[in-house]
Amino acid sequence: MIDFKDELVAKSNRINDELKKYLKKDECPEKILNEAVEYSLMAGGKRIRPVLIMSTYELFKSDVERVLPFAVAMEMVHTFSLIHDDLPGIDNDDYRRGKLTNHKKYNEATAILAGDNLLNNAYNLILNDINNNDDCKLEKIQSLKELSDGIDRMIAGEYVDTEFEGKEISNQYLEYMHENKTGALIKASVRIGAIMAGADEESINKLTTYAEKIGLAFQVKDDILSEIGDSKELGKPVGNDRERGKCTYTTKYGLEEAQKMLKEITEDAVNIISSFDNGDFLKELALYIANRNK
Amino acid sequence: MIDFKDELVAKSNRINDELKKYLKKDECPEKILNEAVEYSLMAGGKRIRPVLIMSTYELFKSDVERVLPFAVAMEMVHTFSLIHDDLPGIDNDDYRRGKLTNHKKYNEATAILAGDNLLNNAYNLILNDINNNDDCKLEKIQSLKELSDGIDRMIAGEYVDTEFEGKEISNQYLEYMHENKTGALIKASVRIGAIMAGADEESINKLTTYAEKIGLAFQVKDDILSEIGDSKELGKPVGNDRERGKCTYTTKYGLEEAQKMLKEITEDAVNIISSFDNGDFLKELALYIANRNK
Repeated sequence: MIDFKDELVAKSNRINDELKKYLKKDECPEKILNEAVEYSLMAGGKRIRPVLIMSTYELFKSDVERVLPFAVAMEMVHTFSLIHDDLPGIDNDDYRRGKLTNHKKYNEATAILAGDNLLNNAYNLILNDINNNDDCKLEKIQSLKELSDGIDRMIAGEYVDTEFEGKEISNQYLEYMHENKTGALIKASVRIGAIMAGADEESINKLTTYAEKIGLAFQVKDDILSEIGDSKELGKPVGNDRERGKCTYTTKYGLEEAQKMLKEITEDAVNIISSFDNGDFLKELALYIANRNK
Repeated sequence: MIDFKDELVAKSNRINDELKKYLKKDECPEKILNEAVEYSLMAGGKRIRPVLIMSTYELFKSDVERVLPFAVAMEMVHTFSLIHDDLPGIDNDDYRRGKLTNHKKYNEATAILAGDNLLNNAYNLILNDINNNDDCKLEKIQSLKELSDGIDRMIAGEYVDTEFEGKEISNQYLEYMHENKTGALIKASVRIGAIMAGADEESINKLTTYAEKIGLAFQVKDDILSEIGDSKELGKPVGNDRERGKCTYTTKYGLEEAQKMLKEITEDAVNIISSFDNGDFLKELALYIANRNK
């Protein structure tokens, strides 16, 4: 049996190799825009969303290369959202993953357009894939629709986050914000893996609940790390959320309660995924999300 | 025979009616984001690109409702590009179409996210249309790929525009910039109309050249209007390009030469389209682009 951490690293490396295939290196007037795209795309994230697509697909099928275009597209979308969130007009962050944010490394115009480029190219590469291969177009179009709906929700969640910064918000709004901002793309990742594998409806429903749980856990853990994490490990300053008056799971419920929530949600996720054969990796992934230091 | 101006207004009204169907009016936490999207989308542009999709389609077929989703998507993409271009980090414009720009009316965060929302929803609505109707998926996917390629080129052109602002650039770069920034979506519009209608390759090639000509004419005319237009008619200040040191067809070639270019390119476009039966509207449209006051 392969060790979880080794498998995670192997998958993440595979995604990095795949991402590199889509980088544009040619001499052209927009060369620096392409460099800015590469800078953020290859800045070394955890690749959780693409790993989720691959691993959910592998619950049912073994030819994981079929979902690699979606894995790449999802990471492009995630990177687009980070570049735009970091902009001076939104979060105004100087560092991300221990490196200067895109607009700090390049400039604001380049960062806006690099984000736009990534969002558009996520679609472009899937459309290329559909045009170039004749297999099972229907499930690819359904998966692309899942991605698109996820992006729509993610943008809405980000908007709610900016609108309510510095204001006291209800539990309901806090949940809505995170369900959309972080949860939607995580849910889309799991559903795309399942849809691409032709999973039955009952399995898709169960996996959707699993995804909702780990999506929420991911956010609660992020909020905890933002408060008590190690800024060196995280590659960004700690305590920013509270300073800015951001309403998070820790500022709203307190650290202890947030940690209790995290434990419970993670247990739920583990219970759901345990009903699947071959669910070991996704079970470990739920635990990893709850226990990570960065 | 219907008068050109009447037909243009009728088509533009039809597109406005169609756009309204996609506006989100429900009570939700991101209500103001949806309002910001509506604000720019319904600010009353000329709808040239969607009109091109419809009119090119009508060269071959009469059931124009089949291309309306693409017409709407194209206008959403165009609006996204305007909102982002106007941002303080890019052109920093306060007015557009006689109204405050999106970030001036709302704020920067909202404008960034409203642009992202529009780009994403352009894809989302076409994917919905493909999922909901079974007819001729292949040409819809090819058309969506044309849109996506056009967006990619438009973003690249916008990047080149920002990078070279205030610098003297070669004729080659100026052409490259406009071919991409303005030309790519105009070309995509014409090609989408033709592809959706199942036009033969020779016709598609001819129409592509027609589109390249009017795309260039559109930009040259824009540059002329930026220099000698009526700021009231245009709804934005005149002379900004020169002040900012922007390299345009008028600042580079002089007003007289730019006007001569415009005349020649428009004649080329008219000659090409004259070889089509039913090409009258597109011929008039080429003349309209060259002769407009705003």
